[in-house]
Amino acid sequence: MIKVGIVGATGYTGYELVKILLNHPAVNIEIITSRSYSGKKIAEVFPNLSSVTDLVCQELNVEKLANCCDVVFIALPHGHAEQVASAVVAKGKKVIDLGADFRLTDPTVYSEWYQTKPVPNHLLQQAVYGLPELQREQVRSARIIANSGCYPTSAILALAPAIKKGLIDLSSIIVDAKSGVSGAGRSLNIGSHYAEGNENFKAYKIASHRHTPEIEQELGKLADQDLKISFTPHLVPMTRGILATVYAHIHDKITEKQVEKIYEHFYQGENFVHVLTDNLPETKWVAGTNNCLLAVKVDERTRRLVVVSAIDNLVKGAAGQAVQNMNLMCAIDEKTGLQYIGRYL
Amino acid sequence: MIKVGIVGATGYTGYELVKILLNHPAVNIEIITSRSYSGKKIAEVFPNLSSVTDLVCQELNVEKLANCCDVVFIALPHGHAEQVASAVVAKGKKVIDLGADFRLTDPTVYSEWYQTKPVPNHLLQQAVYGLPELQREQVRSARIIANSGCYPTSAILALAPAIKKGLIDLSSIIVDAKSGVSGAGRSLNIGSHYAEGNENFKAYKIASHRHTPEIEQELGKLADQDLKISFTPHLVPMTRGILATVYAHIHDKITEKQVEKIYEHFYQGENFVHVLTDNLPETKWVAGTNNCLLAVKVDERTRRLVVVSAIDNLVKGAAGQAVQNMNLMCAIDEKTGLQYIGRYL
Amino acid sequence: MIKVGIVGATGYTGYELVKILLNHPAVNIEIITSRSYSGKKIAEVFPNLSSVTDLVCQELNVEKLANCCDVVFIALPHGHAEQVASAVVAKGKKVIDLGADFRLTDPTVYSEWYQTKPVPNHLLQQAVYGLPELQREQVRSARIIANSGCYPTSAILALAPAIKKGLIDLSSIIVDAKSGVSGAGRSLNIGSHYAEGNENFKAYKIASHRHTPEIEQELGKLADQDLKISFTPHLVPMTRGILATVYAHIHDKITEKQVEKIYEHFYQGENFVHVLTDNLPETKWVAGTNNCLLAVKVDERTRRLVVVSAIDNLVKGAAGQAVQNMNLMCAIDEKTGLQYIGRYL
Amino acid sequence: MIKVGIVGATGYTGYELVKILLNHPAVNIEIITSRSYSGKKIAEVFPNLSSVTDLVCQELNVEKLANCCDVVFIALPHGHAEQVASAVVAKGKKVIDLGADFRLTDPTVYSEWYQTKPVPNHLLQQAVYGLPELQREQVRSARIIANSGCYPTSAILALAPAIKKGLIDLSSIIVDAKSGVSGAGRSLNIGSHYAEGNENFKAYKIASHRHTPEIEQELGKLADQDLKISFTPHLVPMTRGILATVYAHIHDKITEKQVEKIYEHFYQGENFVHVLTDNLPETKWVAGTNNCLLAVKVDERTRRLVVVSAIDNLVKGAAGQAVQNMNLMCAIDEKTGLQYIGRYL
Repeated sequence: MIKVGIVGATGYTGYELVKILLNHPAVNIEIITSRSYSGKKIAEVFPNLSSVTDLVCQELNVEKLANCCDVVFIALPHGHAEQVASAVVAKGKKVIDLGADFRLTDPTVYSEWYQTKPVPNHLLQQAVYGLPELQREQVRSARIIANSGCYPTSAILALAPAIKKGLIDLSSIIVDAKSGVSGAGRSLNIGSHYAEGNENFKAYKIASHRHTPEIEQELGKLADQDLKISFTPHLVPMTRGILATVYAHIHDKITEKQVEKIYEHFYQGENFVHVLTDNLPETKWVAGTNNCLLAVKVDERTRRLVVVSAIDNLVKGAAGQAVQNMNLMCAIDEKTGLQYIGRYL
Repeated sequence: MIKVGIVGATGYTGYELVKILLNHPAVNIEIITSRSYSGKKIAEVFPNLSSVTDLVCQELNVEKLANCCDVVFIALPHGHAEQVASAVVAKGKKVIDLGADFRLTDPTVYSEWYQTKPVPNHLLQQAVYGLPELQREQVRSARIIANSGCYPTSAILALAPAIKKGLIDLSSIIVDAKSGVSGAGRSLNIGSHYAEGNENFKAYKIASHRHTPEIEQELGKLADQDLKISFTPHLVPMTRGILATVYAHIHDKITEKQVEKIYEHFYQGENFVHVLTDNLPETKWVAGTNNCLLAVKVDERTRRLVVVSAIDNLVKGAAGQAVQNMNLMCAIDEKTGLQYIGRYL
Repeated sequence: MIKVGIVGATGYTGYELVKILLNHPAVNIEIITSRSYSGKKIAEVFPNLSSVTDLVCQELNVEKLANCCDVVFIALPHGHAEQVASAVVAKGKKVIDLGADFRLTDPTVYSEWYQTKPVPNHLLQQAVYGLPELQREQVRSARIIANSGCYPTSAILALAPAIKKGLIDLSSIIVDAKSGVSGAGRSLNIGSHYAEGNENFKAYKIASHRHTPEIEQELGKLADQDLKISFTPHLVPMTRGILATVYAHIHDKITEKQVEKIYEHFYQGENFVHVLTDNLPETKWVAGTNNCLLAVKVDERTRRLVVVSAIDNLVKGAAGQAVQNMNLMCAIDEKTGLQYIGRYL
Repeated sequence: MIKVGIVGATGYTGYELVKILLNHPAVNIEIITSRSYSGKKIAEVFPNLSSVTDLVCQELNVEKLANCCDVVFIALPHGHAEQVASAVVAKGKKVIDLGADFRLTDPTVYSEWYQTKPVPNHLLQQAVYGLPELQREQVRSARIIANSGCYPTSAILALAPAIKKGLIDLSSIIVDAKSGVSGAGRSLNIGSHYAEGNENFKAYKIASHRHTPEIEQELGKLADQDLKISFTPHLVPMTRGILATVYAHIHDKITEKQVEKIYEHFYQGENFVHVLTDNLPETKWVAGTNNCLLAVKVDERTRRLVVVSAIDNLVKGAAGQAVQNMNLMCAIDEKTGLQYIGRYL
């Protein structure tokens, strides 16, 4: 059994990790930590876990974590991963950071967008960006995983085949993404108040959201050159789900059917990424699953490629992907513990 | 493997059955039928099933069902179960009817409330009311299960200990129940339109809902005498869940703690019914599970017992309970295929 | 023009007051106060007011309020009204308190339920309970109005005719009430988080909610004797609205039609209370209005009266009723500024 | 008083018209028609109108309409306006069509996108596209108004200043728009079922929605040349509101502040279009109003202009705009009957 620890288990990402890992046949959760609820059972915070687990939230004790666990998941706001990661790696254990601290390989870019100090280079250089469909081999051998962000997962998977195959104009990429409210976390702020979020739709952080450089970095790797995108996040009055609508100019003469074939071929054999050919994906179709559903359209009138991508922000966009990464790092079947049938309703 | 058929697989109850049974380790789904979608894959109707199953909806063929299946689930509106049940039972197979046709043991009461002809007596007399916590042994040996209704499940489990132990005045029972919109089914009517149901709360069918005699019948069995209740259903702007708030005069001098103990003892060892002592149950805590959560309060000022009961109307209130009944009828562990961790979010 | 001040203008109740009073043809808003947003325009807090008003939130200055305003509305949490009320009344001006501090005429009952010191007797004795349909004349001449609470408004209007006319057993009253999330206010707590409240329904404070003694007091006045009720509040995943389902044993032989007539007669001529005879009221039908819709049912099988009552908790349950009270106190038409057509959608 | 008729009064657009016009000080509603509810009071269909109006839905009688009314609003699905418009215009009365039949000036384009016969040329040539902020004078003297569509209103107002002032590359325009469910109308289909729409977000009709040529036509007029856009509509789980996020390449060196000034200047003096400079608009801020809120951002990294536009789809996107057009046609103050304070909650 893989012994795991979860740092920050009572946020929504941490909670989702606990839920998935409790069901994982090869995992034993050794330690969960929570600053706000230390000393309490997690089932007191999330009562659906009542008859399921007796796990108690602990104060963060880095040494204990590093000693007891084979894999430590960090589900903290950015800027807090270094201390844990450092200690865990020092003991030869593995780290999966669900925050942003290890995602940007260039520390200058990190400082600029996050307005805080980057993690030291010796740690950063050990980190692998954890989007398994694009770099499965690196994930397998990684010591530190920078788990792909929620919006970036939806955007990068939507664009990877088009970029890798050189189908589009790299200067023309626009990502218009929409997320459910759980993406903003469990901490209290007026924007997450029910009466404010209900019956409301809004854009936020236009041209300034921190996931922008992350998407650019990963797409840039696929393109083998730097690129810049426009990224607009929006808030949807629902709990779970991200839908990204992605636009780019597509080179002449290629048809929608051909693009579809390229996408299908690119993701052939993938367990969690599926290309729909008769339908456009809806967030309801992926809720509660680790799936990413894609559909491609070519707007013949404007020669634009439009890709729609749907994920569950807490699963493929966070906890599920983290477990997928863990499975790879631990050399077990990538699907283990992740084969949920979506809820639909 | 148990071979099962599902009649009416594309309604919400039928869908939930398909979803649960696809995950059931001892079941093989042989046939699913749907009038509206025959010839189509069920994954075309519920695309979350796309990478999960290739099952195709068929026209109802009673003979084929009876021949191919060990257990047939009927998820049709009331008034349509007789033909299927008759054929299946004739072949020595088992039937679980999720509709109302077999629930009322007195055909006169059925005719009066449902305004249609009851099933013939020879069939009706083979039916067992399928609420396993209250009559597990009869379920085990039944040929036909009348699966308990959604509101009745929430109400009966809330009241059973109090009635069985003689704690309350039987003439004082009021069941004020609230259900999510999926309880009204997938067929189209203006009340289920998003813009009508959203931001709305209403009562309906006061003193005239068809679940009234069903609740009275089962509570009457526990009381060993006839009784009448007041039952008011309400519609909540959410997809899943029932919360029932149940009131009755409680006999003197018994304390809340004592009632709690009686309830805990009554449901001791049950897998799916849990008595909360520090909290009031919320529908979110049971969504996606076969659990019923209960809490009891004694209003000392009025000497009224108030019991709150929460279930997922599609699971413990329908498909989950049906599978629990099937497990018992097939002599396998009652929990098989039903041990989901609730979603919470 | 009536000069008014609003203390606590940036809570939901205060906001709704501002909105209604901005549209009131006989009112000028002189001062609005807010602790959290003092110095900011209210349109920065509620941007729908942007092209409507330049009002700026001020720190509470009791003297200034008392000097500048003819009527002061207090929309603060309980326990904070005394100081304002005292100063305003001393200047011969009028006070309408939307909180609970003046609602309970017996200071002992107040202390017991609110666990805080009641307002001094000389102030308390000047207060009139502000539910105009039941004591319009007292409201007209009042100096201090204790504006009826949201749940109490829905419950008292539902029961008044039955009690006044002696139709029901006073020991049998149960009020099962359901409220939208705005009823819990704009302050932040985990229960009001979108992801926690969405797709959830729950009961809370069973047999212990502070509106219980308020309902009992007012019903007791109508009955001319003390009485006790059972009251259960619930939280509905919607922003606005209260639906109360009220139960009581009704004396023999009276028919539903007769009760309906009694209710219609009781509320004859009322602008804001309407008895439906063909329908059950839904919260959507009153959203954005000062109306209370009622329907009565007699459950012949149990001889129980069931009354359903729907209001908008922020309007008839708070700000609209406060303005209705103000109109009466200022001897202008009760309907002034309150004749909105409901939104429905 | 202006005598008006409303054809199709029980759809959501028709309903909103009735609601606005009942409050309009210069209007008398003479006739409302409804195929589904003829003979019924509209207050039976929308019970919030119960104490407000006794209007009864009639069968459509074109002659009667043309005789009794000064202005006839047509709120029917496309393809049904010709007969009414023809009769009304023949009598020298005015028509405002809220459907699409008169919007496209080129009959070939209409046939191509709507797959049905266009209205005859002699009628079409009398029609004026009814977006008052852009062609107020033509509206004033029109006999037939083709009331601007909901998505087009949000998109055209967002782009008009940029195009008119030549700020952007006309080949680079992308409109990513999101609408509440009321936009799909009141007729029943599975996509509007509460349980399907709730907790779901989706794109639909990518590169094929019928509002595309309408947006292109109007933007083309402003640009004085043909242009093509990419348009993607999405469905948001809420009742009301459209948010459009619009992208285009902006010419070098112009700053965000300069663009903001240009937009402010362009809409200076407008009652219903406002440019926000400190905030991004949210649909909640315009719900229940005839306002369009805009904000502009310049993404310096990609030199893209991003404009966000928020309207209430049923008001500025349909019925409110129709009344604004009527006011102009009838030479009364454009704001009459439209100065609602938004609801926010």
